[in-house]
Amino acid sequence: MSDSVKVAVLGASGYSGIELLRLLLRHPNAELVAVTSRTLAGKALSAEFPRFRGVGVADSLKFTNPDTETLKATGAEIAFLALPHGVSVEYAKGLLDAGIKVIDLSADFRLRSAELYKEFYDHEHPAPDLLSEAVYALPEVRADDIKKARLIACPGCYPTSILVPLIPLLKAGLLGDAPLSVSSMSGASGAGRKESVPLLFCEVQNSVRTYSVPKHRHLSEIGQELEIAAGHPVKLTFVPHLVPTHSGICTTIFASVKPGVTLDQVGEALQTFYAGQPFVRLLGANKSPDTKNVVGTNFVDVGWAYDARAGQLILMSVEDNIGKGASGQAVQNFNLVCGFEPTAGLMNI
Amino acid sequence: MSDSVKVAVLGASGYSGIELLRLLLRHPNAELVAVTSRTLAGKALSAEFPRFRGVGVADSLKFTNPDTETLKATGAEIAFLALPHGVSVEYAKGLLDAGIKVIDLSADFRLRSAELYKEFYDHEHPAPDLLSEAVYALPEVRADDIKKARLIACPGCYPTSILVPLIPLLKAGLLGDAPLSVSSMSGASGAGRKESVPLLFCEVQNSVRTYSVPKHRHLSEIGQELEIAAGHPVKLTFVPHLVPTHSGICTTIFASVKPGVTLDQVGEALQTFYAGQPFVRLLGANKSPDTKNVVGTNFVDVGWAYDARAGQLILMSVEDNIGKGASGQAVQNFNLVCGFEPTAGLMNI
Amino acid sequence: MSDSVKVAVLGASGYSGIELLRLLLRHPNAELVAVTSRTLAGKALSAEFPRFRGVGVADSLKFTNPDTETLKATGAEIAFLALPHGVSVEYAKGLLDAGIKVIDLSADFRLRSAELYKEFYDHEHPAPDLLSEAVYALPEVRADDIKKARLIACPGCYPTSILVPLIPLLKAGLLGDAPLSVSSMSGASGAGRKESVPLLFCEVQNSVRTYSVPKHRHLSEIGQELEIAAGHPVKLTFVPHLVPTHSGICTTIFASVKPGVTLDQVGEALQTFYAGQPFVRLLGANKSPDTKNVVGTNFVDVGWAYDARAGQLILMSVEDNIGKGASGQAVQNFNLVCGFEPTAGLMNI
Amino acid sequence: MSDSVKVAVLGASGYSGIELLRLLLRHPNAELVAVTSRTLAGKALSAEFPRFRGVGVADSLKFTNPDTETLKATGAEIAFLALPHGVSVEYAKGLLDAGIKVIDLSADFRLRSAELYKEFYDHEHPAPDLLSEAVYALPEVRADDIKKARLIACPGCYPTSILVPLIPLLKAGLLGDAPLSVSSMSGASGAGRKESVPLLFCEVQNSVRTYSVPKHRHLSEIGQELEIAAGHPVKLTFVPHLVPTHSGICTTIFASVKPGVTLDQVGEALQTFYAGQPFVRLLGANKSPDTKNVVGTNFVDVGWAYDARAGQLILMSVEDNIGKGASGQAVQNFNLVCGFEPTAGLMNI
Repeated sequence: MSDSVKVAVLGASGYSGIELLRLLLRHPNAELVAVTSRTLAGKALSAEFPRFRGVGVADSLKFTNPDTETLKATGAEIAFLALPHGVSVEYAKGLLDAGIKVIDLSADFRLRSAELYKEFYDHEHPAPDLLSEAVYALPEVRADDIKKARLIACPGCYPTSILVPLIPLLKAGLLGDAPLSVSSMSGASGAGRKESVPLLFCEVQNSVRTYSVPKHRHLSEIGQELEIAAGHPVKLTFVPHLVPTHSGICTTIFASVKPGVTLDQVGEALQTFYAGQPFVRLLGANKSPDTKNVVGTNFVDVGWAYDARAGQLILMSVEDNIGKGASGQAVQNFNLVCGFEPTAGLMNI
Repeated sequence: MSDSVKVAVLGASGYSGIELLRLLLRHPNAELVAVTSRTLAGKALSAEFPRFRGVGVADSLKFTNPDTETLKATGAEIAFLALPHGVSVEYAKGLLDAGIKVIDLSADFRLRSAELYKEFYDHEHPAPDLLSEAVYALPEVRADDIKKARLIACPGCYPTSILVPLIPLLKAGLLGDAPLSVSSMSGASGAGRKESVPLLFCEVQNSVRTYSVPKHRHLSEIGQELEIAAGHPVKLTFVPHLVPTHSGICTTIFASVKPGVTLDQVGEALQTFYAGQPFVRLLGANKSPDTKNVVGTNFVDVGWAYDARAGQLILMSVEDNIGKGASGQAVQNFNLVCGFEPTAGLMNI
Repeated sequence: MSDSVKVAVLGASGYSGIELLRLLLRHPNAELVAVTSRTLAGKALSAEFPRFRGVGVADSLKFTNPDTETLKATGAEIAFLALPHGVSVEYAKGLLDAGIKVIDLSADFRLRSAELYKEFYDHEHPAPDLLSEAVYALPEVRADDIKKARLIACPGCYPTSILVPLIPLLKAGLLGDAPLSVSSMSGASGAGRKESVPLLFCEVQNSVRTYSVPKHRHLSEIGQELEIAAGHPVKLTFVPHLVPTHSGICTTIFASVKPGVTLDQVGEALQTFYAGQPFVRLLGANKSPDTKNVVGTNFVDVGWAYDARAGQLILMSVEDNIGKGASGQAVQNFNLVCGFEPTAGLMNI
Repeated sequence: MSDSVKVAVLGASGYSGIELLRLLLRHPNAELVAVTSRTLAGKALSAEFPRFRGVGVADSLKFTNPDTETLKATGAEIAFLALPHGVSVEYAKGLLDAGIKVIDLSADFRLRSAELYKEFYDHEHPAPDLLSEAVYALPEVRADDIKKARLIACPGCYPTSILVPLIPLLKAGLLGDAPLSVSSMSGASGAGRKESVPLLFCEVQNSVRTYSVPKHRHLSEIGQELEIAAGHPVKLTFVPHLVPTHSGICTTIFASVKPGVTLDQVGEALQTFYAGQPFVRLLGANKSPDTKNVVGTNFVDVGWAYDARAGQLILMSVEDNIGKGASGQAVQNFNLVCGFEPTAGLMNI
């Protein structure tokens, strides 16, 4: 491919969409040629999002309707879908047929099984034939597949924070059979940019609360990927919490280890697996990651510790839920698909 | 006792101390006769804390040095110690010898074993003889002992949120042998009111982080009390998190249950144990508590759920770390010691 | 009246309504007999607002429709209207006709002139005959009228913070003729509890912004009351700001003074005017009030300073916008109307 | 100059210093060769600030002592001083003598008069001879002088937000003689990164408060620059407020206009003055700027409105206090001094 690729963003008015715009407006190898939103059609990008005023094409580019024909006419080669699940799938097939590669941020193409999708998302999958083609695109795990794909399913925010520390340990066979316990805390942007009383400032500021207990939808993709890594099903309890911050996920995992496994072995497995990866920062044993160090970035920071009294391993990870947990990872996949520098447009700090 | 008791607060300049003042200034049965602080001696209460201006004795009462003689002269019958651990113990004996009952908010008298104290607090306990007399004062668990005690050790903030949901289930023999996994999130007031860069607004606002992993000091009292409830040692991994809110603790516990135990049995055990208790609010199965409902109060709200896929019980509790987790509980104990209404001065909402 | 009065709250689901419930559930002389909300009818108070669980009648009292007949049947003697402007007026007449006194928190009865109402609220006043009867109920200014009134119009949040420091100085004739400049900052609860993207946590947390410039609706009542105090029209520019906090208004006023007027005279005028008033706390010259000292209370704190370089007086006030700026003041008026202690139910700190 | 310049940052541990590091680590034309901090000497940049881990030289560059000799040896051509006032001046002369240009973020070289400095900073200026050489470096106002300077005094955060809207209007002769009234709100980073109880999260989160009333130190430079623009002294009252946000300043200015001056003329004067300036974004008449659109950027957004009822002009501006108000502006000046693209390294959004 050339050193600049024309891209479109569908569904640009949510927090992931806005973050995508932020990254793509300044990406050295991306030319933003289309942004779509039915409700904003005709309006300039920076008129809706004044933060972008004066930056790149933000003053000149106008929102359009998300019609494939319109997008095709812009010359877009790659489309980012920052749409709700159930909506992405409506556009994906048309775009692919029109020769436009799809990088989807929704849950629509993350699962390999249409039945699992139905169990967790409460309706039949509308395009089950596309599931086998889609790649669950965790770049540190599946780069080769991503490079060749035309339908990219970006992992969810919680799953990324959970899979990054666990996959290397499962692959290395270090973990025991006891169920994994996962406690995650997310900033409010993870709940979306929608009219909602429970997400008002006054409802969130003094609030820490669990939700979607005990069966959050992300469990489906987490289970799928852990099973692939481990070679067998993995039991996991997941409890997400909403905490009063804009962005950032902090995940704490309690795990058993096989007899004799040491904390050094855990560290080595992680270091081996992530050697050379620019966006996974391994902090070391007994180090606590902090969301404040990753908010606004594509980094995921990981620490680990061993509770000798109870005999449990503790894994700790942080990321930006709309960065590495969504739009940053989408751009990371874009770089892979296009053969650009892995860090192109992503070394924001 | 009469319907009004003279009380003193030692160490009134921290967040627990301020909360104690807030509660005691308006307690219908408490007469605040002394507040101590070496650094503030001579200053009026409301001059230091303008929030209290115009309320009760706040404009007239002046800080004094914390000398037993001075306190004795005020006629104080009960002293609240809102002092750091290691400092409380210095005052307790003198106060007790002077006939003043002690309600201690520090960790100095929570452990029955001086050795355990040394292991977790890094120095010899200065008054091990007092440990056997002190009562670990969780009012819903040990009211009878509290009523008779002259040395009250108020439980820590995290321990209260952990013990309240666990003790009834351990007593009822419902939990399995797997290690318990506990993830707690606390507001910044739990870290104290001290000059500290990591606690500045700008360091906390966008930050979610673990700390004191894997061996937080509160594990000592948690282990002690769980063992008493269960009749045998209980393994527990505890990971505290600092979240960007003033006050409030949200605790999530992952537990195994004995074969055949149902979620209904869990609910019944809790309801039986806390019947008639005004400050433990059992929300029910699959209900998520929210710190926003308890901040500023003496309530602890509890929910529970069962993850059938992984076979784990999830317990969720919230409280105000400086309310039920510290000063509210201290006043609740005060009411018990003095024979006042259990809710006197505590039904703030 | 007796020592307990039956009260109803209409429109209890907004922030002022919730604050009213908080105050009335524990008011020693109020018996809450009705709460209304069309959308919540049939639901228990504490089912909708779990914070109130276990407190007073919160578990037993159910929301009803706001029909006068229903309210009459409860025996309510006084109705608090925490309804939007334009809606309060629909209920007021019926309630008054049924012999129920009305304490209105909306803007519907604050203005004496129906024309001024139309200019600022964009529609004809539906009950102009009631305007002459209603009392603009700033308790520190108009206590005698309030005691005798059956239709109480509680001042707005911004107006209270502006009128409290200005009225005594205008009455004393100390201010010059230059236009007053007022900059106010309000927490997000002032914008209401409604489905709105601009009020989401993620939109407010990192945001400080002006709004309703240059003609905020509250200018109408501010102008009316300043003119009454001064005896002539008073020019005033008002710029409100939304700041990222739950509650609290901080108001800063820039004013000219008449030649020769000293800062001492300013302080004396304030002290004379507010002597014996429990809720106006005069901090003194060169003292900065802080919203943190008044949030959750019915206090308004006032400081003042003189900028000798530019020759301008600076007045600074803080209050809780839903406390003294709305519901606290409503309860303060309730105490006046019923002849209760002025501070009954209001000394929360 | 070449297309890359070696730079040093002195005093890198405060919020402005950290922001400078953030900008310079990724500036396409800056090579960061030295960072100094007595307390952190020997430590790697990213060890102290984990956010920077893996970015540029952050893992390899170590803090050193701020000795001129050491800095000279690194080849640094330009030194940024992010030091407290009174400390910058100690280093500036030595650096200049060593041929290193100085971009100072402190107040030490902002004033032309040593007497004014003494009046506002309470001690004699230690190097008054340098005051005449230093350039008060508001790039939109004084670019030509900045390009030639070797001692750059970056304007303060509040002054930048106040001078940007006012200077064009004073130069155009549109404003009246009445004193200007300025109300500014700043995030807590403006107060510095220092051990301080009043700046703790728990002290700031629920707090809005004025401070330094009526004579904030920034009045000295504001007055100096307004007088230069107007050609005569300008009276101005300034009230700063601390609001609970990390960064961002919102400034609201109340001004009189000369008879007959229209809002259109105000807009035209601003547009003419800032034509072609990339970092001043003029939002238009009756538009409210929002700090959320500028936080993390070098933009200053400006709106204006006219209150016809009181006859006053309202000017509204927002900026990031550590961006355009400090470190962003310092880098903007660096670009000017070195002849780089004006926006190099500064188009972060």
